[in-house]
Amino acid sequence: MAEQREKVAVIGSGQIGKSWALLFSSAGFQVCLHDNDSAQLSNVLEDLKGQLMTLTSQGLSRGKLDPEEQLKHVTLTDNLAECVKDAGVIMEAVPEVMEVKKKVFEQVDDVMKDDAILSSSTSSMLPSVLSADLKHRQQFLVMHPVNPPFHVRAVELVPAPWTSGDVMQRSRALMVRLGQAPVVMKKEIEGFVLNRMQFAILGESWRLLKEGVVGVDGINKAVWSGLGPRYAFLGPFQVGHLNGPGIKTYLDKYGPTILRLQSSMGPAGLMGGELAEEVEREMIKEVPLDRLAERRRWREVRIAHLSKLKRDIDLQEKKEIEEGKLEPLP
Amino acid sequence: MAEQREKVAVIGSGQIGKSWALLFSSAGFQVCLHDNDSAQLSNVLEDLKGQLMTLTSQGLSRGKLDPEEQLKHVTLTDNLAECVKDAGVIMEAVPEVMEVKKKVFEQVDDVMKDDAILSSSTSSMLPSVLSADLKHRQQFLVMHPVNPPFHVRAVELVPAPWTSGDVMQRSRALMVRLGQAPVVMKKEIEGFVLNRMQFAILGESWRLLKEGVVGVDGINKAVWSGLGPRYAFLGPFQVGHLNGPGIKTYLDKYGPTILRLQSSMGPAGLMGGELAEEVEREMIKEVPLDRLAERRRWREVRIAHLSKLKRDIDLQEKKEIEEGKLEPLP
Repeated sequence: MAEQREKVAVIGSGQIGKSWALLFSSAGFQVCLHDNDSAQLSNVLEDLKGQLMTLTSQGLSRGKLDPEEQLKHVTLTDNLAECVKDAGVIMEAVPEVMEVKKKVFEQVDDVMKDDAILSSSTSSMLPSVLSADLKHRQQFLVMHPVNPPFHVRAVELVPAPWTSGDVMQRSRALMVRLGQAPVVMKKEIEGFVLNRMQFAILGESWRLLKEGVVGVDGINKAVWSGLGPRYAFLGPFQVGHLNGPGIKTYLDKYGPTILRLQSSMGPAGLMGGELAEEVEREMIKEVPLDRLAERRRWREVRIAHLSKLKRDIDLQEKKEIEEGKLEPLP
Repeated sequence: MAEQREKVAVIGSGQIGKSWALLFSSAGFQVCLHDNDSAQLSNVLEDLKGQLMTLTSQGLSRGKLDPEEQLKHVTLTDNLAECVKDAGVIMEAVPEVMEVKKKVFEQVDDVMKDDAILSSSTSSMLPSVLSADLKHRQQFLVMHPVNPPFHVRAVELVPAPWTSGDVMQRSRALMVRLGQAPVVMKKEIEGFVLNRMQFAILGESWRLLKEGVVGVDGINKAVWSGLGPRYAFLGPFQVGHLNGPGIKTYLDKYGPTILRLQSSMGPAGLMGGELAEEVEREMIKEVPLDRLAERRRWREVRIAHLSKLKRDIDLQEKKEIEEGKLEPLP
């Protein structure tokens, strides 16, 4: 007798929708993938199979099923109500256009199970705005993945003011089960967490560039050859905790300096205009516009290898702990 | 006949001094390592040998020499003048205390070759302050490495207003020859580049924490499982260039949002006090203070593996380009 799999509805068959389908099916869920555009759906299974084969051949796959087996648990449909009505989890991943998303949620609202999780993959829209008029707005949250989600584990979980605590907890557990790293927010804020941090780095970069302190290449290099390698393994408070020693010592020591530096240059001002053109000229010397797609694959390959490296080291560490060679941290 | 090796004087035999000694000797330089404290010097060669053996056994060493052979080119002395007088490059790495550093530079100033590069490893002092009174101040700059320098390639090159262009160019070439990634600054600024960017991330983290948007764990996770993996390979303008598509499109698109977000919360305020204690309580649950040293080794192992991973992928890419399978970027 076939086991009863939990059902997930994924709405939208673009890159993010396909990534969710891969992640959920790898973790043993039954996935229904919906798209309005039947033509778009016709290539989805081939595409997913190709991705899974590549991952498997590189030793980067996550699940225990072989690709053929796994994809038996992905069904496709252009009928939204069919897809959604008995799903315990509904993952919206349609284009980043407010009206398009809102229309989907209205339709889903009428047919979804009362206790289902209803999630948007938006990177920029506030959950309160997306869900204000829904009957099921307590079931609603944003789960924002980072590209490429199969290799970058962070997913931001953003509640609206009315999202139930139970939905947040279940969503968190769900992401852990998929092997993702849930960044659970306590309340919504524009830019969420990741983009705000990214913008903070970009803002400081822009300031340094504008003030003529360092060039485009130097700014990039400071990150990929300096800060990036540590941030691949540790967050800002973890770094401070190690260096302090202890995060309190660190913050007490650098707090006044940081405050002074932040006040010293004033706001970054609007990015864009002539300086942005200058930056683009520099960047095009490195990667011409017609080779960006290729360079994105370059990035994806490296991030995938880093993801595997981290997993391999963690497994090795787990083994050493089990063998009593290493004392686990609390 | 023995080949004539270029001579480097490294002043100070702490972690940074030893790292410089390793890097320069790996690259084929003759290194003279100086410390006032002869007792401290007695263990240096054993320590360097241990580090080199570990690196070699893990396939992480850089040079082509075996450890014994390489260390034949490192000599130790407690005589500063002897060490410095015929060196083409002088790397100061004494404790981060202004008066201690200034005293070293005064002594060096009297005996150094007129065309030698005179460099401080300081992470926080401005080169103009350190070198103002030196006869050889045109030869002076800061070269600030990032821990651990053998695996994190970034080195910030910071000129004083009077540092000669020739010294900056030679210093840059020197770092490239060591296999480091020089971040060449055009003028000095407090915090240099890396720390300013690190402080920008930390400032935003503090703000998000203070506003109750997300907890300590969420902030750390957003970085190590989200932003970090991309920053391990790409700087902020490179990320924007890929996502834009093109950095100008990216900056034009997000510029207004970034400006608005930056203005929306006001300054971060002084870090420290009660909230810092709360952060410390959280962090201690993860890593108790008496296990920080162990956790630093945990970090170092991971960063070393990432460094090797990057090198291996780059070598593979180079091979594919040589075989005509891949078209090089400009």
